[in-house]
Amino acid sequence: MADCPFCAIARGELDTDLVASRTPRTFVVPALRQRRHNLGHVLVLPTSHATSLYDMSSDLRAELFDEVARVARVMSAHLGAHGSTILQNNDSPDQVLFHVHVHVVPRYPGDAYLTPSGPPGLEIPRETRVEQAAALHAALRRG
Amino acid sequence: MADCPFCAIARGELDTDLVASRTPRTFVVPALRQRRHNLGHVLVLPTSHATSLYDMSSDLRAELFDEVARVARVMSAHLGAHGSTILQNNDSPDQVLFHVHVHVVPRYPGDAYLTPSGPPGLEIPRETRVEQAAALHAALRRG
Repeated sequence: MADCPFCAIARGELDTDLVASRTPRTFVVPALRQRRHNLGHVLVLPTSHATSLYDMSSDLRAELFDEVARVARVMSAHLGAHGSTILQNNDSPDQVLFHVHVHVVPRYPGDAYLTPSGPPGLEIPRETRVEQAAALHAALRRG
Repeated sequence: MADCPFCAIARGELDTDLVASRTPRTFVVPALRQRRHNLGHVLVLPTSHATSLYDMSSDLRAELFDEVARVARVMSAHLGAHGSTILQNNDSPDQVLFHVHVHVVPRYPGDAYLTPSGPPGLEIPRETRVEQAAALHAALRRG
């Protein structure tokens, strides 16, 4: 898209020095905002303008997650991280830029990266989960 | 693995009524813990015991994320959600169960799902991001 900053990076018109890696249909850049305890947080993106995980072909999605896996694997050794968290929003209320970007965040003990601000998740009664499974099953069949 | 509860579900020995969907090499179950504003949160898993995104073949990972995308797409219409967030931990400090599981979380305006407890992410100076990109580039080349 003409006014999408990620498309401009993909085309090589902007921020070429921020690109850590390119594959034929993906690229990797450091995130603009990073939490103090999670420096080295990067984004893996498709070169073409897709807006969600379901708005791309299966083979492009496969190439995207091959690169996510490759970056996540290297991240621990490279940064001395304990591991990594993968995060991606599809039309979520938090989403700001609508060119698909998969966050790969280096994780360290005590970094509290995923500690939410509100009350913790509740253990859901088994019968509710059975109902949820049946309802999702029906929705998937409808397509 | 013999003592992995997700492997037992994969083999059909446990919780068959919690399985919302199966593909040849993946399955979907509701999460045990769900936040009050994000009910309908599910996990998408490989049938085989892999411990991280990089501990599986490219084609299994492709099948896994095809299913993640299918569930995420259906979720909005099915639950009336605004969108979804995809989350997955690789050897992260938060990880409890080491059979790969991709969270697919329905998202609603004001649910504060991703609001972290600590200070917000800082905007990282451009020169620091350029250094991060170069360091990751070198690490990826080393493999």
